[in-house]
Amino acid sequence: MSVSTVAADLSVRAPLPVLGQNVTVPLVTGGEVTYAALDYAASAPALQRVWDDVAAYAPYYGSVHRGAGYLSQLSTDLFENARRTVAEFLDCRTGDQVVFTRSTTDSLNLLAAALPDGCEVFVFETEHHASLLPWRGARVTCLDAPRSPRQAVRTLERALAERDPHGPALVCVTGASNVTGELWPVRELAATAHAHGARIVLDAAQLAPHHPVSVRDLDVDWVAFSGHKLYAPFGSGVLAGRADWLRAAEPYLAGGGASRTVTRRADGGVDVQWHEGAARHEAGSPNVIGAHAIASACKALTEAGFDTLAAREQRLIRAVGEGLADVPEVRFLSLFGDDAPRVGVLSFVVDGWDSSHFTAALSAEYGIGVRDGLFCAHPLVRTLVGGDPRAGGECGASGPAPGERSLGAIRVSFGAGTPDEHVERFVRAVRELVRDTCARR
Amino acid sequence: MSVSTVAADLSVRAPLPVLGQNVTVPLVTGGEVTYAALDYAASAPALQRVWDDVAAYAPYYGSVHRGAGYLSQLSTDLFENARRTVAEFLDCRTGDQVVFTRSTTDSLNLLAAALPDGCEVFVFETEHHASLLPWRGARVTCLDAPRSPRQAVRTLERALAERDPHGPALVCVTGASNVTGELWPVRELAATAHAHGARIVLDAAQLAPHHPVSVRDLDVDWVAFSGHKLYAPFGSGVLAGRADWLRAAEPYLAGGGASRTVTRRADGGVDVQWHEGAARHEAGSPNVIGAHAIASACKALTEAGFDTLAAREQRLIRAVGEGLADVPEVRFLSLFGDDAPRVGVLSFVVDGWDSSHFTAALSAEYGIGVRDGLFCAHPLVRTLVGGDPRAGGECGASGPAPGERSLGAIRVSFGAGTPDEHVERFVRAVRELVRDTCARR
Repeated sequence: MSVSTVAADLSVRAPLPVLGQNVTVPLVTGGEVTYAALDYAASAPALQRVWDDVAAYAPYYGSVHRGAGYLSQLSTDLFENARRTVAEFLDCRTGDQVVFTRSTTDSLNLLAAALPDGCEVFVFETEHHASLLPWRGARVTCLDAPRSPRQAVRTLERALAERDPHGPALVCVTGASNVTGELWPVRELAATAHAHGARIVLDAAQLAPHHPVSVRDLDVDWVAFSGHKLYAPFGSGVLAGRADWLRAAEPYLAGGGASRTVTRRADGGVDVQWHEGAARHEAGSPNVIGAHAIASACKALTEAGFDTLAAREQRLIRAVGEGLADVPEVRFLSLFGDDAPRVGVLSFVVDGWDSSHFTAALSAEYGIGVRDGLFCAHPLVRTLVGGDPRAGGECGASGPAPGERSLGAIRVSFGAGTPDEHVERFVRAVRELVRDTCARR
Repeated sequence: MSVSTVAADLSVRAPLPVLGQNVTVPLVTGGEVTYAALDYAASAPALQRVWDDVAAYAPYYGSVHRGAGYLSQLSTDLFENARRTVAEFLDCRTGDQVVFTRSTTDSLNLLAAALPDGCEVFVFETEHHASLLPWRGARVTCLDAPRSPRQAVRTLERALAERDPHGPALVCVTGASNVTGELWPVRELAATAHAHGARIVLDAAQLAPHHPVSVRDLDVDWVAFSGHKLYAPFGSGVLAGRADWLRAAEPYLAGGGASRTVTRRADGGVDVQWHEGAARHEAGSPNVIGAHAIASACKALTEAGFDTLAAREQRLIRAVGEGLADVPEVRFLSLFGDDAPRVGVLSFVVDGWDSSHFTAALSAEYGIGVRDGLFCAHPLVRTLVGGDPRAGGECGASGPAPGERSLGAIRVSFGAGTPDEHVERFVRAVRELVRDTCARR
């Protein structure tokens, strides 16, 4: 083996093997290149370990909580073990519930449906829509974008001080921004919420794949995350935390599995007794493969060690920042300042480029998959790009009309399955595209 | 190859290969036996074809509707193609919407959340809970169990004739009972509903895996089914049908993907414009693997041909009936009579046996997985077992207390992946268990 081969091998090595690392895609310039998946913040590839665990279980698939056969018993055990694994992964308190949902969006909609009567909700305008929008029916206070973690705490403090301290209240906060990757002061916000008699739910969709999340240490009341961002894209998510509001709420979905007994009344109507545990909100046949996949990912990340994973990811973040530091056309988006702690999620705009054209060029000319647009966090991106959270712009797959400049940014994101080479290629590609633009001027 | 080997091979052959057909399980009598999965009505094993299609796609997994990269585009195409495949499978009308949900339960809860104001709902007490319970907030008329398809139509006719003909109304009906397997007169019920200005949703959870379902021919307004009963257990289900109620309704989940634009108002609040198509009710990252798996199953079933599949299944149904005809202790449950057309779902009670003990014996002594209990269809099972839909009994994994007789039945169910040998073993096992009981008396 020659030295250069060794170097190439090292450069493609990621801490955790993922599916798709050998997938090649065509380039407009001819030929093919291995695909650089740099859109982890939208959906991460499945860990090879997750896939292997799913593949090993698939022949043993059976109905959960429903059958008397061996595989049904095995599947039920697997499902309930997945619940315990997630509880350990999140360092839940005794008595906390782990409910399997379909995604973070679903988890937060479930919690929104479980709010006590009269509950007030406090949420920063900087949240992505999964955190910003589910609180229908509640009185929502939308907080202005803070420009530092300290300002975030002060803003929440002020807003909570004005509320009626006797009614129920919930604060919803993201752990790591899906736009800037910046870490939010979750522990401090939790303390602030509790000091004012409010509860807090942590949206860990972008945090959990990169950092350990301890419900106990952060002292949050609930945490939500998605399998598909945690290297387990099999249609499941999680809501974990305090049981009381969940137990007191109407079942999220009405149907079998959530119902304990159903009887017809003498007057012809139907009486239902619902389960009180997690099953109350899991009507229908559970997605056991999705839950098993999440549990597998939790184990793989824990075994790899978040310290190791985070240290490497910080190196990749620095490589992006340093690699583009002398390119003035590239402006990174940040609420808390360029040096704020963050996970491997970075958004930027490029002077002279429409963001959707830039990402199309990254894909077509370099085989790099990133994302452009408003990242389902419209007010935040508008604030960071244009200075105005009240400006226009649409979400969705369609780009701007010809000749029209889209209001949006470009986001690059990576994680435990990203080889160095992908990030190196990305830096090189951005530099070349910007240089070519300048040359054309 | 000896003749006996050939015979053995033939006897294990099913029309469509499924995962798990070589899985062995331990017997209390010692040794192992291949597992006979006869609980298809709860969850069917994955088709080998479905698994292969999922495995082929998995390395190409990317975010749907969200990314600019090659794999995101490919994943988005795959997801939208899955929608078209399902629309073809269900023979949908032009303009019908196909929404990917997580299950039949979820589909019907979505429709329940989309009912127009003042909508009345008509549902038979014989429905399983996924059809019986979601209609919270609506005025629900629960119809008595009919004892023939004709009586079902007459019962609905009478109930609809009494309603205010100007308000919106919905009839929810199952296509095939999850307890008796009996086919319901869907076309006639649809005509009756429409004659009275009502709409109808078909719960095809148990029908779609066994029979072709044509939205157009049956003239139903919506149809719901689950992937996990259709050999595609990856966390997805379907609601397909009329777009108008869905478009007029608030989004089922609030979050990204469903939202087109989100802006902060001058007064600090948030304005949202929602999408109008299927995306309106699919907030969060779509479960593209789940949708792809369903599409794969739809294609496999269509290509195998429902005529072929149904003819074979009818032969297996006859084998059960004829094989146990001379065992008076076995009483099959039926609403419409033993000769009523049905799919491969049969429930029965065994004189002298607690149903949960009987299914435990089938599992431990024969490696057969069936289900016992009330099948999340409490009023129906109580009617058929004990004659009283108002009697007690619980749903869930826990059996009766020691010494207590559970009120429940035993259900055997099968489909396109079931080899003859499983059904033959089941018939033999039931006969032997009953005979042993008699001998012990």
